[in-house]
Formats: sequence, C-alpha cells, structure tokens
Amino acid sequence: MTALMIDWIDQIRWPEGGAEAGILPAIAQDADNGDILMVAWMNREALAKTAELGEAVYYSRSRQRLWHKGEESGHTQQVVEIRTDCDRDVILLKVRQTGGIACHTGRRSCFFERLIDGAWQVTAPVLKDPETFYK
Amino acid sequence: MTALMIDWIDQIRWPEGGAEAGILPAIAQDADNGDILMVAWMNREALAKTAELGEAVYYSRSRQRLWHKGEESGHTQQVVEIRTDCDRDVILLKVRQTGGIACHTGRRSCFFERLIDGAWQVTAPVLKDPETFYK
Repeated sequence: MTALMIDWIDQIRWPEGGAEAGILPAIAQDADNGDILMVAWMNREALAKTAELGEAVYYSRSRQRLWHKGEESGHTQQVVEIRTDCDRDVILLKVRQTGGIACHTGRRSCFFERLIDGAWQVTAPVLKDPETFYK
Repeated sequence: MTALMIDWIDQIRWPEGGAEAGILPAIAQDADNGDILMVAWMNREALAKTAELGEAVYYSRSRQRLWHKGEESGHTQQVVEIRTDCDRDVILLKVRQTGGIACHTGRRSCFFERLIDGAWQVTAPVLKDPETFYK
C-alpha cells in the first residue's frame, strides 16, 4: 500500500467513539444498471483491501473480521468505482456482480422487499438455491 | 397511523443497544435513473412519517430530531417506493427529488467524489449556490 493510498483513507470520517467506532456503511451498486445490490460495513482495512484487490471487501460486524465478499459463495464483486459522499462518512462501490447474485438468499439484490399496502412484499425471485453455493 | 402500519415498522430490525440504538441507514435513490442521491438515518418515527407524508423524513443524528428533508432548502423528496433489505436493517427510498438537488452543497447527489489515482476527485458541478436555498 502506498502513502498516497493511506492519505485518501484518512480523509474518510471514520467514527471515533461508540458501538460503531471505525466503521461506516458501504453500498454496492450495480455499475451497469444502477440497482442497489446490498449494504454492508467497512473499516479502514476493508476499504484499503477493496482498493488494492479491485474486489469488494467488507467488515463483518457479526463475525468481527474482514469479509471478502464471495469468499464462500463465489459471488465476488468487481469494483468499477469507489465514491464517497459530501460528509465522507458513507462509501459507495459501483460493482459488477459475479454470478448476478449479491444476496445470501440467492436473489440478485438484497433489497427485494417492498412496502405495499402496509406490508413487506417480496418482489424478486430466488435465482439459485443458497444451499448450492454455501457449503 | 393504522395498526397495520405499526406492524411493518416493528418488522424492521431497529438496533437495541449502543451509540446507534434505534436508528438505521436510509438510502435515497433517484426513482427514474437509479442514481444514489444521499444516505441519511431513520428511526421508527422517521419511517412512519415518511410513509404517512409520502416525503422523506430522516432522523438527524447531529441535531437529534426528525428532519423533514427540504424543510429549509425546499428540496423535498417525493417517495415512490419504500424497500428494505434481507436483514431488514437498511431502508431504501426511491424518490423524485424536488429541484433536482439532494446535496447541501448544491449538487444533484451527495456522492460527487470519486477515488481516482489515489485521491478523491469532484465529479459533479454545483447546480445552485447553497446560500440561495439556506437562509
């Protein structure tokens, strides 16, 4: 990792205190059609690894470790762009989704539930049984 | 608010402890072209209000109160869809952005900085001087 890379990582406003210290939300958006595929979390190391590999690496809050997306399922994300917002406290990745499946349920996007008539309704099909890609 | 509405709000996984208790990230996405306009935060009340009004209402962490987007600037967001993800811990709003400006800097989207050659570079113009819409 170069000094230059560390500069831009330090320019992100990583939170200092509280339960979420050092981690920020990261959005993966389909680089081609703009669909939001998933939201996960990143710390400095995850963002550095993402830039280095050109593949999305998140920080798993439940497992408290780096999570190279697709490490189990094979559904990696090729990073086309890395963006941040005006407060520099959210990361946006534009990605190409390997296998066309970002969600652990086997759907293309994690955002498959839509509020319709006061209830969450499933709006997208399971493309592949998760049992086939989580061993 | 109907009992039915309270049901779907209770089905969201609002965090219980820590610094971020009761609040979750909320993404505003352009309903027409898929651009991500901004990310803010919501609590139960913000989400209930958003559904009730059909306009985005967030929870401001810095001001610790509800924030009806556009209350000062006039740049309200008309809500076309409300979605959640597979963990039900992120809210996605598909919106139509009044004035075409979501960002407090006067840009269309808050995600105007892109990482290019190891530095954050501004990729979108200021459409309107913020001094003209924040009095």
